[in-house]
Amino acid sequence: MSAGFENRSAGAIWLRWAVIFSVVVSGIAVRDGKAAVYGAVARPVDPQAAWLTYAPVNEKKVFGAGAVPDTILRLGDADVEKTAEEELESGVRGMLGRVVREVRSADGLKGSKAFVVVGTQGEVEAWRPGLKSTKAIGADGFRLRRDGNAIVVEGGDSRGVLYCAFALLRLIAQERSLAALDVSEAPSAPVRWTNEWDNPDGSIERGYGGRSIFFDEQAVRADISRVTGYARLLASVGINGVTINNVNADPKLLNESNLKGVARIADEFRAYGIRVSMSIDMSSPQAVGGLTTFDPLDPQVAEWWKAKVEEIYRFIPDFGGVVIKADSEGKPGPMKYGRSPADAANVVARALKAHGGLVLYRGFVYNNHLDWNDLKADRARAGFDNFHTLDGTFEDNVVVQIKHGPIDFQIREPVSPLFSGLKKTNEAIELQVTQEYTGQQRHLVYLVPMWKDALDTNTYAVTDKPSRVQDIVTGKTFGRAEGGFVGVTNVGLDDYWLGNPLSMANLYGFGRLAWNPSLSADAIVDEWTRQTFGNSEKVRAVVNDLQIRSYHVYESYTGSLGVGTLTDIIGVHFGPGPESAERNGWGQWIRADHEGVGMDRTVATGTGYIGQYPPELAAKYESLKACPDELLLFMHHVPYKYRLKSGKTVIQYIYDSHYEGAAEAVEFAPEWETIAGLVPDRTYFEVLRRLEFQAGHAEVWRDSITQWFWKMSGIADAKGRVGNYPGRFEAEAMRLEGYAPVDVTPWESASGRKAVVCGAEKCSAEMTWDGADGWYDVAVRYFDEMHGESKYSLEVAGREIEQWKADWNLPNDRLNGHTSTREVVRGVALHKGDVLKVTGWPNGMEKAPLDYLEIVPAVVTHASTSKTAPAAVR
Amino acid sequence: MSAGFENRSAGAIWLRWAVIFSVVVSGIAVRDGKAAVYGAVARPVDPQAAWLTYAPVNEKKVFGAGAVPDTILRLGDADVEKTAEEELESGVRGMLGRVVREVRSADGLKGSKAFVVVGTQGEVEAWRPGLKSTKAIGADGFRLRRDGNAIVVEGGDSRGVLYCAFALLRLIAQERSLAALDVSEAPSAPVRWTNEWDNPDGSIERGYGGRSIFFDEQAVRADISRVTGYARLLASVGINGVTINNVNADPKLLNESNLKGVARIADEFRAYGIRVSMSIDMSSPQAVGGLTTFDPLDPQVAEWWKAKVEEIYRFIPDFGGVVIKADSEGKPGPMKYGRSPADAANVVARALKAHGGLVLYRGFVYNNHLDWNDLKADRARAGFDNFHTLDGTFEDNVVVQIKHGPIDFQIREPVSPLFSGLKKTNEAIELQVTQEYTGQQRHLVYLVPMWKDALDTNTYAVTDKPSRVQDIVTGKTFGRAEGGFVGVTNVGLDDYWLGNPLSMANLYGFGRLAWNPSLSADAIVDEWTRQTFGNSEKVRAVVNDLQIRSYHVYESYTGSLGVGTLTDIIGVHFGPGPESAERNGWGQWIRADHEGVGMDRTVATGTGYIGQYPPELAAKYESLKACPDELLLFMHHVPYKYRLKSGKTVIQYIYDSHYEGAAEAVEFAPEWETIAGLVPDRTYFEVLRRLEFQAGHAEVWRDSITQWFWKMSGIADAKGRVGNYPGRFEAEAMRLEGYAPVDVTPWESASGRKAVVCGAEKCSAEMTWDGADGWYDVAVRYFDEMHGESKYSLEVAGREIEQWKADWNLPNDRLNGHTSTREVVRGVALHKGDVLKVTGWPNGMEKAPLDYLEIVPAVVTHASTSKTAPAAVR
Repeated sequence: MSAGFENRSAGAIWLRWAVIFSVVVSGIAVRDGKAAVYGAVARPVDPQAAWLTYAPVNEKKVFGAGAVPDTILRLGDADVEKTAEEELESGVRGMLGRVVREVRSADGLKGSKAFVVVGTQGEVEAWRPGLKSTKAIGADGFRLRRDGNAIVVEGGDSRGVLYCAFALLRLIAQERSLAALDVSEAPSAPVRWTNEWDNPDGSIERGYGGRSIFFDEQAVRADISRVTGYARLLASVGINGVTINNVNADPKLLNESNLKGVARIADEFRAYGIRVSMSIDMSSPQAVGGLTTFDPLDPQVAEWWKAKVEEIYRFIPDFGGVVIKADSEGKPGPMKYGRSPADAANVVARALKAHGGLVLYRGFVYNNHLDWNDLKADRARAGFDNFHTLDGTFEDNVVVQIKHGPIDFQIREPVSPLFSGLKKTNEAIELQVTQEYTGQQRHLVYLVPMWKDALDTNTYAVTDKPSRVQDIVTGKTFGRAEGGFVGVTNVGLDDYWLGNPLSMANLYGFGRLAWNPSLSADAIVDEWTRQTFGNSEKVRAVVNDLQIRSYHVYESYTGSLGVGTLTDIIGVHFGPGPESAERNGWGQWIRADHEGVGMDRTVATGTGYIGQYPPELAAKYESLKACPDELLLFMHHVPYKYRLKSGKTVIQYIYDSHYEGAAEAVEFAPEWETIAGLVPDRTYFEVLRRLEFQAGHAEVWRDSITQWFWKMSGIADAKGRVGNYPGRFEAEAMRLEGYAPVDVTPWESASGRKAVVCGAEKCSAEMTWDGADGWYDVAVRYFDEMHGESKYSLEVAGREIEQWKADWNLPNDRLNGHTSTREVVRGVALHKGDVLKVTGWPNGMEKAPLDYLEIVPAVVTHASTSKTAPAAVR
Repeated sequence: MSAGFENRSAGAIWLRWAVIFSVVVSGIAVRDGKAAVYGAVARPVDPQAAWLTYAPVNEKKVFGAGAVPDTILRLGDADVEKTAEEELESGVRGMLGRVVREVRSADGLKGSKAFVVVGTQGEVEAWRPGLKSTKAIGADGFRLRRDGNAIVVEGGDSRGVLYCAFALLRLIAQERSLAALDVSEAPSAPVRWTNEWDNPDGSIERGYGGRSIFFDEQAVRADISRVTGYARLLASVGINGVTINNVNADPKLLNESNLKGVARIADEFRAYGIRVSMSIDMSSPQAVGGLTTFDPLDPQVAEWWKAKVEEIYRFIPDFGGVVIKADSEGKPGPMKYGRSPADAANVVARALKAHGGLVLYRGFVYNNHLDWNDLKADRARAGFDNFHTLDGTFEDNVVVQIKHGPIDFQIREPVSPLFSGLKKTNEAIELQVTQEYTGQQRHLVYLVPMWKDALDTNTYAVTDKPSRVQDIVTGKTFGRAEGGFVGVTNVGLDDYWLGNPLSMANLYGFGRLAWNPSLSADAIVDEWTRQTFGNSEKVRAVVNDLQIRSYHVYESYTGSLGVGTLTDIIGVHFGPGPESAERNGWGQWIRADHEGVGMDRTVATGTGYIGQYPPELAAKYESLKACPDELLLFMHHVPYKYRLKSGKTVIQYIYDSHYEGAAEAVEFAPEWETIAGLVPDRTYFEVLRRLEFQAGHAEVWRDSITQWFWKMSGIADAKGRVGNYPGRFEAEAMRLEGYAPVDVTPWESASGRKAVVCGAEKCSAEMTWDGADGWYDVAVRYFDEMHGESKYSLEVAGREIEQWKADWNLPNDRLNGHTSTREVVRGVALHKGDVLKVTGWPNGMEKAPLDYLEIVPAVVTHASTSKTAPAAVR
């Protein structure tokens, strides 16, 4: 870009061009027998546009025989209204192939057969008094209607105008008719924030989409060009706040130079109605303030916070507030001085109050040195125990931010009893968009059904008002003014933001639920699919089906019956590791022994956790009979032979669910393959690659968990599958050259408890095929550690048929369930006597580890899903 | 790759992996209710694979209910046979999803329900005497048949084996049934070469696909990894020779160090049965040999050539020979010493003979200082005049390489009279794959129909034998042992080899015609489309249609009635420039004056050129009545009002054809858009971008040529189009700020003869819309020179609606028909009184030049061809 262009690139211009160049504005066939006719201007879809592709739609479905608006009249001058206008212009251009005029007064409408008017309620009434609504539109709310030849985009405030514009664009993208349009909407709650766990060094805690878009090298990045793209996405679903740094906060981010950097970020978000906030460390007055204490009741400390907050607001006049994690997992907090979370929250809240800032104080406070031997100890109790006595003592601008379940984003938990435990305190529900315990974006898991379960759970807190979790956090139940939704998102520099293109449905869904928690998971994913991949029936059928099924599938192979995600809970939270839950201070115990499994959280005989719920809900969980099977092992300790409502024993259900879940995961990739060519190639292959990984990793989960429970229970699988793997050939039993067997820990994450590793420059393992002549699928199971990229090759009858690198970069450096992966070669001809040989070349710390070969009959058919295959077959 | 891998990467292994990783081996759905089921292993199509995608096919169409071969038995040990085996393995794997076994003896076939056997005729007979053919298979020929459960891939020699393997793969790719397979084929001629005009510095003369795959920085590239990929493509269509350097040869390539580099290239080609050859400079004995002369009759010179050739063969034992361009366009040659082309050819041929090398001596010898005022002077005569008297004096290993027409790859020429002018001399036809005069790969032009016209032309040279051009060059007419086909290809490092993905049909077609010139242009393109994009009816219909129409479309807007490509013939041969043909020594005169146009080449009144043809053909061309209209202006000078066979005047035909051709070019992009999603995205957008360019550039051609003829003839277009451009607004007539008008040369390449250029940092041109309110397409016509990337923006009513860079890198640095291009913004709302403003920011030598705006009513409809559009619409 020339200097001239750079000077003009700030702000809205940048956005518009980013959008225009990023979307397909194809599909516009212009034909006129008499006049010049021009070619198309199609461009590839930019993955960064996520669901805001603004791809062409069938305008007849939207406008029928009516005119398409040719002019936008913007009534107000607020930056956010200008953004609304820009988005409408971009959207209409992309989706309808129309470049509209933008005017500032009614004069400019002369000659328009149809137009869009954009403004706040006051501006709309002033412009055309006849359009006055009988009811005031609230903050962030909007009314979207057709009035003759006008489409009126009207907001309760400028942010409402922007949300109204996005609502209109969302309808167009879904090819909804605008003929009889009159929609009024308001957000469910004022707090609709994301938390981003970005560190100053550019890493992101529990982030799976690349490095930080905000930070690098201990400071705000020079290039923050991804921020505007993110702001668009968030604003399009009504998010109004973003906390840009890790809840495990680095105090030095409060330094002046860093605040200047944060101010640059805030400038980018501001035009989209999004306020920036920061996570803070309660020890900051001491750590960076030079005080000798951070006791929240010390007047010096209060004075320090006041001054620091004033400094922040000098840089960021619309600063949203702070998020506080304290006395949790080693973070400093008020406990050090014998003070309460309320003391800590309030000292900061008082400093923020004059500026309109909030404190979001995390309820995630627990002791991670619990005594395993204490049958009454229970981490799940901690939130309620630590906070409910403080009810009513928090300042009005404090919101207690509560994870949806009492533990930590497990695949299945009941709702936190703290929701109903606070009646005079603002609350926000913390949902996790980043898939920390749910496959880390390498597995497809659409989380909205899980969130809906939580939000729809009736706590029975009061009888005169609705008291579902969504009613409580939106302030309806207890009449709270503040509160709402916080989504831990952790987007990164990856072009797909979260790494997996399909995971963006979770970010979309979080925003939509925060706006309106009564939306269904099905409706939300269909909105997302239509906007992301178009309105094709076929694409919608496939993508929606995959997304909707994914939650239960993942639950089935990672931890059923409410036992939690049976991962290595101490480390990276990715692969199977059930043993890690037990016998340590972290309190995610499942208490599996030779007789039974589950945490007894009953009042009668257990930890008493269930008693933290209001009586009606407590009664349901306390009763073995009434407790839903899906939460059984969360609430109760039962024998393996305990029969579920279906009549199936617990142990058999564990076996069956893991096999069924893994089998369903295998179907995902072939199902996705049926829409090859209907989604962009790059996205197609990116998703396919992950679905294939998931199919292989689901098998690791299946085998690890089922073997672990078999060993623990001593009860065999009634269907004979567990411990019986037809076609599997253990590496340690092959003819080895250079390779040596090792025991794997945990034992259940390697087939036969062992693998082989290579201590030389290269090693090999070979076997002779003794089965029938035929076509087979050959899978090589190996371990792909984080550091080092070993190479492998597979030979059959003296000929190399596959060669690959261990480059999945899986999040661990040992042989275990995190790193176990596989390479599959399909349709391989084997005759009896053929030799199969795997050769490994170690690299770095990775010793080309190998677990087994699995050889199963192949049923080869041609689904012909490739680009170059016959269209008819699709 | 680790060191271990690198060591193994030479030769066939490299190929196999390159292929496997490059093709979609998707579409293989493996399902088995009982056994483990694995995910797919789809990968994106690699553009470098060109037509060898080996993408999945419907195997039922190929094998019916029969078994798919599971084993390849290779009988011979030749490297080329190993290549055949590797390709079969890769192809079966990609297309059928089967990984076959490879064995070396019949023992290995035990248990195979079906297999492929690969070998020479001798090897096949020795293996199974019952398979002995009654007739010997000739050199490079093959027989492909089914014998029970065997598919027999049998070659007359090892190269024939490879061609047979590719023939089998070609059938599979096209989903042809192999049930009753028995095909015997032999190539039409022994010489099936490409010439590559690569220079030692890595540039390529008349190359439009990036830099050289062979050379860089005055030597053979260190990295020649693209060579194997090219060898595969060439071998797959039967090419057996490649001349790797420019016919304007650099003598220093004959130095020892360079010959070592050439030997590395030859090593890569050898496994594909391709012999490397080089272009040489006749002055080499003096230029690099240190002699004082290069007189071909000087014994020292002969000795030098002998020694040099021996040196070459030490490095490259199967060196194919040399190509000689001499006494042509400034190249040194025998003329300097009063010697003939035969003297020059023979001195080198004698040196080569013992080694089996050929001399391909180019017939492209002409005087480029002809006298324009001499009405008898005629460049078209030169080939015949220079060579026909030498007939019978060439050594047996000399082949005269004759461009298909007498001039130089124009869009329409008659065949060279030299074909029938040599009866005792080997001949090869030189066809040009690189589109020097036919749009340089920025325009879609499928050249096979043009080549077929030439090859099918009956010269009437003899009456007792067929004497079509194809019969002559294949040696049939005059019983010559050597001869055949040379294709000037000029592939480069571009992933699509020739730059334009669709241009690869020309390379494919050249090879197929060289193998079998009786194939039709339609059949060839359908083969190519099926292999490149799959067997989908829809894709085939669209791609085949575009290709087949393209030749006549290009001819229509660039030069009809045999007048030649009316480009700037002195420079880059790209955009329109009719004036350049006249009044200079290059002899591409069209002799247009105020009364008429065309070269009188008759015997009766003209140059006598027609008399170079055998009498029957000469009679046809001599007669105005018999001469086909498509060659009229090549053969005759006629008045503009001369009536064609259709009754239309010449001048009106010129106008009509240019308008019709340009209008057809505009239809190409929308037609291509109907297969979005059915071809790989990257290819889709790459082609679309070029088709859009072509639509805009065809308009430049139309306007330039028609205006030039209008001025020349003074006869207006009966349909009123020429000189009348509704909706066009000249930049020089706008309100200019900073911009200043300039005259453009040639005048007809700018609308209104003028453009504006910017002498400041930025400039603008604005106008006020005075037409009706409505939707319009707005085109900005500007000049995009090679050096410098100006920026432009277009504003409407104070708002920027488009911004772009002049980055097409068009092959010239002046304002003219080469650089005239345009940006189109479609569906723009304009109301009367709206101001349109173009701003330009110069860059480098490019002064943001601007020609005009064109504003025409838009008919906006949604064809919905984008990825994200409803599938149903496709």
